[in-house]
This record gives sequence, structure tokens and C-alpha cells, in this order.
Amino acid sequence: MLAQELTSPNKQLAMKFALQAGGVPTYTLTYKGKEVIRPSRLGLELKNDKKSLLNDFTVADTKTASFDETWKPVWGEVAQIRNQYNELAVTLSQAETGRQIIVRFRLFDDGLGFRYEFPGQKNFAYFVIKEERTQFAMTGDHTAFWIPGDYDTQEYDYTTSKLSEIRPLMAKSITGNLSQTSFSPTGVQTSLQLKSADGLYINLHEAALINYPAMHLNLNDTTMVFESWLTPDAIGDKGYMQTPSTTPWRTVMVSDDARAILASKMIYNLNEPNKIKDVSWIKPVKYVGVWWEMITGKSAWSYTDEVPAVQIGTTDFTKVKPHGRHAANTANVKKYIDFAALHGFDAVLVEGWNIGWEDWFGNSKDFVFDFVTPYPDFNVAEIRDYAKSKGVEMIMHHETSSSVRNYERHMDTAYKFMKANGYNAVKSGYVGDILPRGENHYSQWIVNHYQYALEKAADYKVMVNAHEAVRPTGIARTYPNLIGNESARGTEYQAFGGSKPNHVTLVPFMRLQGGPMDYTPGIFEMDISKLNPENKSHVNSTLANQLALYVTMYSPLQMAADLPENYNRFLDAFQFIKDVAVDWDESHYLEAEPGQYITAARRAKGRSDWFVGSVGGDTSRTSKVSFSFLEPGKRYVATIYADAPNAHYKTNPQAYTIRKVVVTNKSKLSQYVAPGGGYAIGIMEAKDKDATKGLKTLK
Amino acid sequence: MLAQELTSPNKQLAMKFALQAGGVPTYTLTYKGKEVIRPSRLGLELKNDKKSLLNDFTVADTKTASFDETWKPVWGEVAQIRNQYNELAVTLSQAETGRQIIVRFRLFDDGLGFRYEFPGQKNFAYFVIKEERTQFAMTGDHTAFWIPGDYDTQEYDYTTSKLSEIRPLMAKSITGNLSQTSFSPTGVQTSLQLKSADGLYINLHEAALINYPAMHLNLNDTTMVFESWLTPDAIGDKGYMQTPSTTPWRTVMVSDDARAILASKMIYNLNEPNKIKDVSWIKPVKYVGVWWEMITGKSAWSYTDEVPAVQIGTTDFTKVKPHGRHAANTANVKKYIDFAALHGFDAVLVEGWNIGWEDWFGNSKDFVFDFVTPYPDFNVAEIRDYAKSKGVEMIMHHETSSSVRNYERHMDTAYKFMKANGYNAVKSGYVGDILPRGENHYSQWIVNHYQYALEKAADYKVMVNAHEAVRPTGIARTYPNLIGNESARGTEYQAFGGSKPNHVTLVPFMRLQGGPMDYTPGIFEMDISKLNPENKSHVNSTLANQLALYVTMYSPLQMAADLPENYNRFLDAFQFIKDVAVDWDESHYLEAEPGQYITAARRAKGRSDWFVGSVGGDTSRTSKVSFSFLEPGKRYVATIYADAPNAHYKTNPQAYTIRKVVVTNKSKLSQYVAPGGGYAIGIMEAKDKDATKGLKTLK
Repeated sequence: MLAQELTSPNKQLAMKFALQAGGVPTYTLTYKGKEVIRPSRLGLELKNDKKSLLNDFTVADTKTASFDETWKPVWGEVAQIRNQYNELAVTLSQAETGRQIIVRFRLFDDGLGFRYEFPGQKNFAYFVIKEERTQFAMTGDHTAFWIPGDYDTQEYDYTTSKLSEIRPLMAKSITGNLSQTSFSPTGVQTSLQLKSADGLYINLHEAALINYPAMHLNLNDTTMVFESWLTPDAIGDKGYMQTPSTTPWRTVMVSDDARAILASKMIYNLNEPNKIKDVSWIKPVKYVGVWWEMITGKSAWSYTDEVPAVQIGTTDFTKVKPHGRHAANTANVKKYIDFAALHGFDAVLVEGWNIGWEDWFGNSKDFVFDFVTPYPDFNVAEIRDYAKSKGVEMIMHHETSSSVRNYERHMDTAYKFMKANGYNAVKSGYVGDILPRGENHYSQWIVNHYQYALEKAADYKVMVNAHEAVRPTGIARTYPNLIGNESARGTEYQAFGGSKPNHVTLVPFMRLQGGPMDYTPGIFEMDISKLNPENKSHVNSTLANQLALYVTMYSPLQMAADLPENYNRFLDAFQFIKDVAVDWDESHYLEAEPGQYITAARRAKGRSDWFVGSVGGDTSRTSKVSFSFLEPGKRYVATIYADAPNAHYKTNPQAYTIRKVVVTNKSKLSQYVAPGGGYAIGIMEAKDKDATKGLKTLK
Repeated sequence: MLAQELTSPNKQLAMKFALQAGGVPTYTLTYKGKEVIRPSRLGLELKNDKKSLLNDFTVADTKTASFDETWKPVWGEVAQIRNQYNELAVTLSQAETGRQIIVRFRLFDDGLGFRYEFPGQKNFAYFVIKEERTQFAMTGDHTAFWIPGDYDTQEYDYTTSKLSEIRPLMAKSITGNLSQTSFSPTGVQTSLQLKSADGLYINLHEAALINYPAMHLNLNDTTMVFESWLTPDAIGDKGYMQTPSTTPWRTVMVSDDARAILASKMIYNLNEPNKIKDVSWIKPVKYVGVWWEMITGKSAWSYTDEVPAVQIGTTDFTKVKPHGRHAANTANVKKYIDFAALHGFDAVLVEGWNIGWEDWFGNSKDFVFDFVTPYPDFNVAEIRDYAKSKGVEMIMHHETSSSVRNYERHMDTAYKFMKANGYNAVKSGYVGDILPRGENHYSQWIVNHYQYALEKAADYKVMVNAHEAVRPTGIARTYPNLIGNESARGTEYQAFGGSKPNHVTLVPFMRLQGGPMDYTPGIFEMDISKLNPENKSHVNSTLANQLALYVTMYSPLQMAADLPENYNRFLDAFQFIKDVAVDWDESHYLEAEPGQYITAARRAKGRSDWFVGSVGGDTSRTSKVSFSFLEPGKRYVATIYADAPNAHYKTNPQAYTIRKVVVTNKSKLSQYVAPGGGYAIGIMEAKDKDATKGLKTLK
């Protein structure tokens, strides 16, 4: 048995590559001497090929290298990111086919990344993947935080269970969605967060998903071996490949400290450097929008009840009777622009502005939107001029209804229309089943589309926030105009029946690894029936928890999602949302345990001000944090927005307290967190004595 | 039983609509009192609907109307076309669903057209077609001229058989193609030509195929009832419909004279009038091209053997070794431009000019061409300027490799590139299996694409000649920039093993009903091994037959397909190709019998000159025609290019005679036609006595 070994720069991780009997490539991983990945097979099963890439390999060559550089992201949690790893590239030869592939491993201090590389070869120019057969063999029946594997949705509630319990819990975990395709009773999605009995936090995901189907993990719950399960195309194939090419990186993050998983930048480091030369137009955005009122059912995206089937170019909306619930009207948009201007928000999103919402969903409709024709009550020019006069940007909305060809056909015109009307960012959406029919949201063909839309947007200097698109895999490093994605269960579900109270303690482990989420926090009115009597949904979160999300859910794109009238009722708490930064120089995870709590502290970009957020889970707890991250010798005024002692996500979510104290880097805080609760702290450097007058100092 | 009757303007055709027991809509058709269509069901089977559109109908309303107008095509066989019909519109109600549909019949003197119309209804806004169930019940075991039904190719040799022989002959009729999908042992394509025992010529096809799958016909060979069989999408569905909308027209042409079938303009009449306002840029084209040398294998589309997998944007063709067989090089193209200029051709087509031909086929390659990047030896600007200096137009070539999304992504750029470089017409191609995978060449999704490409071309004032696209259905009336299609077995198959000698006596019946074909006639060297010693194919046609095709195969786009060097060997015969017109004021079919012969006479647009073409079938015959179509009192010089007495398509194809005679409208010709032979006549008005000096007059 040939074996090659590699250790991480700090020597805590070690991996071994070995050819097993029959020329089967395998790898293992250890952390501080503990086994993390037991011997796991590598390879790909091919379609229509005389021989797959699974066995009968010999090692033709091995190369090792070390890499260490620091790069500056255009936006992010930190001002600079160190990319340090040791690398092992194993060239495998298959005598029978004369083919060579390379398995490239990069071992970081926070985990392992590896991928398959297919060098250009005359006898191996094209191939079709039947299935990728990469294994991740677990060492035991770990605790998993998981959502069901699905070709079309990522918007499930997280389930916490033993690996052996995935199968019995699967059916219950598959809740309804507007487009969904399950495939296996033990299939789960990445990033998958695991915790071993001996306290290791393991996270499985992928990086740099480009022109390849998204990977799921299918568990053999007898052996506890996960195997890759790619998303198929319309005819069941899983990847059409041309050489030279590579797969995405398969990633295994590991630590005995959950905070290290959250702080890891490995996924970004495995992506290519920024390809956009001029990044002056890429800017973090805090925004409000005409959105939550439709999500809750208080108002509507559509304009009329009179048109059962819109024909764009033919249907004349000036001739039909409006139903009176259309939110994207000029007067209402101006109200949001006024609110944004008054409170210092950068931008306003408006959904439902363009014709087609009467029949946009569920009809497999090809020409569903044209992305340039407004409803009669939405005056594009007037809104453009009004927003400009108020110093507020407008955010465009492109719901595609998953009619992907239609979107591509109109994309150039749509982006040009945006630029002509002062829109520099777009929220795109892919609700419902994909057109062309038979394709899935995460198949290679559609993954390719999201990338196409992103790169074309960059050509137009447009920032993209793509909803229902494939989960991010760090591509924002390469295309930093990807300022947001949804790709998980966002706040909207709080108006669709509610999410679990500990949901926000899991999203950063399960979704933010690959890039920021447009989670749309900031809901102050938890009783949705107050907005729409017919909607009995309840937001399972305290108001203080909602504030904390602006820190715990890192994103360069943050919405204050609730209605202006609800913020006006709690302007003292709203002050935190106004104050909180959206771009950062430093970030520290102070506490973290998946499913239970996350506490983060971040220093605003180019400033000495800090913001802290802490979210809890199902039960109350006391958070204990040190302010040692503050600059020694400086004094700061901390405004603490916290759950009141009687707060509870279900029964008393709006009970909060606000207090000001002085803090230094010696201070320590012990803070009560209610069930489904949290707290947020704004920490401003005290520039003079007056700033701290009358305030107690936190010891 | 409710029945509505309708007769054609000349009363020779009569149809009857009737509701049978159970509310089943049916129709019948007679011609001169003879039954043509026995009682045949109408209706559509729906998917996921509680009730289909097949039965339980009542007649809610019937309306009749008469229409008579004459319109002028932008190009065509005739200067003006009369569109005269009587119409019956039957509104059918389905009580259980509350739905209404309309069946609209138009009865012309040359046939019947009918379609389903779906008015906009609140309770019937969207539906999915499982199958259209339109029947065409034959009155007996007719002779059929047919090709196998297929979702991906139309390029089969025609089989002549009884209807009852379709099943036993099917397997043999399905010859190999680069993309093909058969579906039924009795499934055939339209247009389908039939002949009854009592001498009726019946032709089944469709008109105005827009945003709907192409129709095949599936035969119940016990009852001799054809039923519509639509082309499915990737998941097997056959049409996603939104109301208001209509199906294409289903057409039944009928006559006791085969010539009337060829002369019929019913398919065009069932299409919408021209939608292109400025048609000044749409012009018939006679052209040569860098094409036959690749088709025969004498030269190549590709540039090098060194690149097994092209990556557009990465592969640098200036760095690779050319294989030396690349035909689309500047010097060779100039040779063709010189030839075109010398002989008065309008244009030169060049295939293989753009990078990507090394791996373009069979790899299911998405980004296969970019349509703007030439090989290093093709100098776009130099060729543009040279052609312009010679007064010759260039014809662009866009092979898509059926990667439809890729073509749409690059279409705007490609059309702009064309206009910037003086290309006003494009030959597009859809060779190989469709991408997105699972779709078919004739499914609704892809039919929609061809239309998109055509309409977008019109925006750029580009004429389109789409190969391997769906068979035309008269859409060129509405979009006259569609100057050609392939959509049948063209001349290229003469270099791929040969077509049947009577093939060209069938194409006008089986393919030209819906629009012109870029058949690419004019092959003078029938022994392909003279061009490429490795290609043993033989062109099953005499040289005189090749000349006749310029008249019998009406098209505003006519190629002289052979190599300049082959034309230079037979310049006396080549003179006919130089002379023949490509646009016409008058056309007369003098003789016609499917599978045996077609003789046509046409008067050149705006001129008094006439051209006659006659093609024969497998055996020799004597063609007898009258020149009564000529203007009385005028004398003409006729140059007759005919088979020599010893000519034979197989053994002596290049044996021809040329003679000049004087003809008047009293003249009659008795002309020998060899097996696989034909003759062509150029008839120029004699302006003075000198013109006819020494010539005999044909009595």
C-alpha cells in the first residue's frame, strides 16, 4: 500500500492518501491525533465509458507544496484573510484507459479541502459523470444538524439528531415547499454540521461550485459513511465534463472549538482570487423594502384579480380594475424612501413592481416576466428621481419564477434598464420548478445559469442577491458582486408558520460557510395577524434576538425587514439597527454551540466602534463574555439591548431592556438570554469624559 | 346528433362537423362527392386535469363566414396569392368544467384547415396537453409516401407503400442519423402525401406552428385512422398552454390532380400576414459556398488535430499546428468570391470559419461555439472588404451543435458581428442532440427557440436559413426573412451514401408545402471519390436532373453546391444555373405524379423570361408539355438542357445535350427523361429576328 502523508501548518491536522488493494484511492484525516475521517474512497463513476475512475489506479506522481498569503476581501467579516495550507497533489494513472487524474489536497489549520482534477488528454477529452463516489467515513454515530437532501429547495428547518436517526426522522423533516425533490431517506445537504461524542465539530461542504452539479451527502447508516450524491439533470446524468477541468473542492472543517468553525475562511480560500478589476461599485448595503407586507399577506405583489393569464406585450394593465392591494405603488414606495432617508438606510427594495404577478407561479409559464414593464401605478422615473433627491438607492427585483431561459433572454435588457434607472443591485428569485422542465435548481445546467447571471451582472456593474439559487460555496471571493444569497430558510418562514427558536444558532454553521445570507432580520411585530388577520403565524424570536442577528448573521447586505410603522413603535430599539455596521475590520466569535447559542463581536470597518450580537436557542441561558477584544486603555460606551427577564419568544417577545454602561477591555458581561432570545450591544469609543458621564463601568 | 356543414367556394369540397354520442366532436370531408376523411374525432387529452377536452361537449354556438383577399408575398412562386375560404367556427361547451373551446374550420378550394382555439377563461387559464387526439380517418389502404415519425430528424429517405405496409417497412426505413428518436412502428411525419385507389391526392400537414410541439401522425393500421402524436418535452409532456391561444392549423389538402397539391398556397394562407414592416432587406439569393468540399470529406471544417477539447476563450489556435485541410481559409474563400463575381452569383457561404469545430459534435458540449471568433487563417475584415469590392455578399454560418442555450446567449453579439462585417443572411444548424438534454428538435420548447432566433434576426435585418430546425409550416408568410430551411433529406446525403433517384419527385409534395428548402442542388460530379478517394458515395441523379431542380424545387435561396472546378468542366450546362431566376411572378405545374415526375414552368420576377424544369424517377419516361403558358403572339428562344439518350443516374450521369429552339404558346415538347434524369429549359423572349436566326421552331 502506497501512502502519502500531509500535515497542516500548525501540525494539528494530518491526512493520509493511500491506494488500497485494487488500486482504489482513499484518504483519512486526523485532528490532534483523533480520527476524523476513517479510510474513505475517492473516485467517480462514469456513464457510457468502458471503465470508471474508481479503481485500478497507480500513483504516477506526487507533489507537495506550501502556500501562505494574506488577501483583502472587498467586503467581509475581517479586513484581511490568511490563506495558508500545505498541499499534496497525487497523480493517478489508470493503465487500462491510459488516463490520468489528479487528486489535490490542501490541508489548512482549520480543515481539509480536496478536489479531482482532469488534465487535458487526447484520450480523455469528454466524459459524463454517473455519480461522484467521494466518501466521508465518520468515526461514529455523531450528532448531526441537517436538512433533507433535495434537488430543488434548501429551505427546510434544521433537524438535530444522531446519524442513525436521520432515516426515521426524514419523512417528518420534509416539509412542504413550492419546489422540492427528495432523493434518499438518508440524503442530506451541505454544509452539514456534525459533532462527535468526543467533542469534535466537523463540517462537510464544498467550495468553488462552478459548472458542476451541487453535492449532497448520502449516508450509509450502517457504516456511518457519507458518500457524495450529485444533483442530476433532466435525463438523470450528473455532470458533463470536458478536460482540462476540475471538480469543486470537497471540504472537511474540523475543530474542538465550535467558534473556529464559524471563524473559518477555508471555503473562501479555496476559491479563486477576485476577477473583478474595478470594485469601486461594490458596496455593502443596509436596506428597507416593500416586501414584508406581501410576505405576511397584508398586501400583494399582483395588481388585479381580473387577469387569470397575463400575456406580456398584450395584456393592458391600464385597462383592468386594480384590486387595491398592490404594494409597489409610487406613493407607498415614496413612504419607504422617506423612511430610509430619515433613518440613514442606503437603499429600498421593491418587489412586485413589474407586470406578471397575477399568474407567475405554478403554471410552468415560459414568458412570465420581462423585467422592464412596470404596473401602471409604479412610476419608474418618478421613483428614480425621488430616491435620488433623498440620497437613497433603489434595489431592483427580478423574480424569474425559475423560468431560466426567459430570464437569460431578457437579461441584457433588464440590466440596461436597471442602470438607466439608477438601480445598482438586484435581488433575483427562482421560486417554483425550473424551466426547462426536468432540470433541477442545483443541477449543473442551472448552476451554470446562476454563474452566468452573476458574471453578466458584473459586466454591468450590478450587485447580485440571488434567492432560491444554489447554496454559495465561496464564489463571492472571485465575484464579490455576489453580495448575498438566500439558499436557506430565511425570515420569511416566520410568516409562513414560523421557524424553530434555535434556527439562528444553526444558520451560521449550516449556511454562512459559503457566503452571506440575505436573512432579512429585524422583525419587531411577532404576531403576524396584527398585519394580516388571516395570517396566524408567529415569529419565534424575541425582539432583542432580532437585533442580535445583525451581528451574528454576517452579511454585507442587511435588511430591516419589518414595516416602518412597526419600527416607529420601538424607535429606541430600532436605534441599534440604524447604528450597526454592515462591513467589518475584525470579528471574534465569543461563544458558539450549534443549536444553542452564538455570540459574536465585530469592529466596524475603518472605525473603533464595536457591535456584539448574541442569540440563544430553545431555552434561556446566561451568556458570559469578556470584552478583551477591545483596545487596551480605551473606554467605550456600550448600549445593551437585551431580553427583559420575562421575555419569551412565544409569549412575550417584545419585552426588552436597553441600558448603557462603560466598558473597557477588562470588562466582563453576564447577560440573561430568554428562550428564543438574545442581545445586541453597540460599543462606541468614548471620545471624552462627557460621553461616559453618569454611566457605570462594567467590571 | 347536431351537424354543421360547410362547402368550399367552388363547392367541390364539403365538410361536416358533428357531435357524436357522449358529446364527442367529429368532422368529415368530401371532395367532388367522394369521401376523403371519414368521421374523425377531435379533442385534446389533458394532464393533471379532472377532465380532458375529448367529450361531454355541447355546441354553444356556431358561426360561419366567407373570406376572399389577394396578398403579395415578399418573395415566392407567384406575384400574388388568393386567400379564399368559407369558415365555420364551432364553440363547444363542457358543462362539468364550464370550459369553452372553439374548433375553427376553413374550407378552401384546395383543402381544409382547422384548429383548436382556447378563449381566455378564468377557469381555464393554463393547461398541459398530454396528447392531442385529432383524427384523420382514411377511407382505405391508400398509397403513402412517408418517412418515419421522429422527434429529432426529418432526414429520412421517403418510402412508398400501402398504409398497411408501414409497420413491416418501418425498421428498414429508420436509417442512421446524428440525432434521432423514433416513437411508434406506425408513426410518420407530415407533410404526408397519400394517394387513394380512386385517384385522390391527399396531403396532411400543419400550418402556423408557433409555441406548440410539431405534430406527427400515428396510424391505427387496422382502422386506417391517423391520430395526431405531438413531440414531447424532457418530462414527456406535449404542450404547456395559456389561454387565450390556439393550436396550429391541421391541414388536409385534396385534389384529383397532383399538380394542384404542388400549386396550393393553403398553408401560407393559414398563416398570419407579414409582420415585418420594412422588407427592403429581404432578397432572394443565388449563392456558392465553401461547403461541398467538407461534406464530401475533401476538406474539413476544423483547423487542427491537436486540440481534443476546445475551450473557447482559452484555446489559442495561433499556437497549434494546423492539419492543412481547413477549407475556410482566406485564400480559398477569395477563390469562391472570384467565382461568384465572375458568374453573377449574389453571395458566398462559408462554413467552418469560427473556432470550435475540433470537438463540436457528440460531446453534449454547452459552450461549443461563440459565433464571433474566426480561425487564424480566416481574416474576417479582409474577406469582408474583398467581397464588397467584388460586389458579392457573404453568408454567415452559425452551427449551434443543438446547444440551444449557448446560441441564445451569444445571439445578439453574433447578429451584431454579422452586421458589422457585411453579412445579411445566416445559415444556422442544429446538428446532434438538443441541449438542454432531454428536449427534442421538435418539442414546444425548441420550436419556440427557432421562432425566437427568427424574430430576433428580423430585428437585426438578418435573413435566416435554418437547417435541422423544425419543418416549416408557412411561417415565412409572417416572417419572410425565413428564406430557407433544410428539414428534409437534402443534397448532402448524395455524399453520405446517396438518396433514391426519385427523391426529388417527392420533396415538393412532402416538404415544400410549408416553405422553401435549401436543397443545395447543382452537383455536376456524381462520383464523389473524384473529390475524396475515401468517399465512395455516388450522386443518384443526372446532371440535367440537377439543373431541373432550380425550377422544380422552388426556393428564394438557391445554391450552386458543387466546386468551381467541377462547374468549369461543364460551363455550357452551368449557363442554366447562371441564368435561372430565384424569384417569380408566375408558376405552373405542367406534370406531377409523386415518386415519378414533376415538371414546372415559372416566369422570372418582372421579366418575360421563363424557366422550365422537369425531374423524373427511377425509370426513363417521355415528358410531354405544352408551352401554352407563354404569352400569345410572342416568340421565345428556348435552350433545352436534357439527358442524352444514353444518360443514366448511375452509369452515365454526365451525358447531356443542349439545344436551342424557337417556341411560342402553340409549341409542344416531347422530351426523353433518363432514369434519375430530367431536363431544364431557359426561355428568353426573342426581341428581334436575329435572336431566332437559324433556329427551328418547336411545333
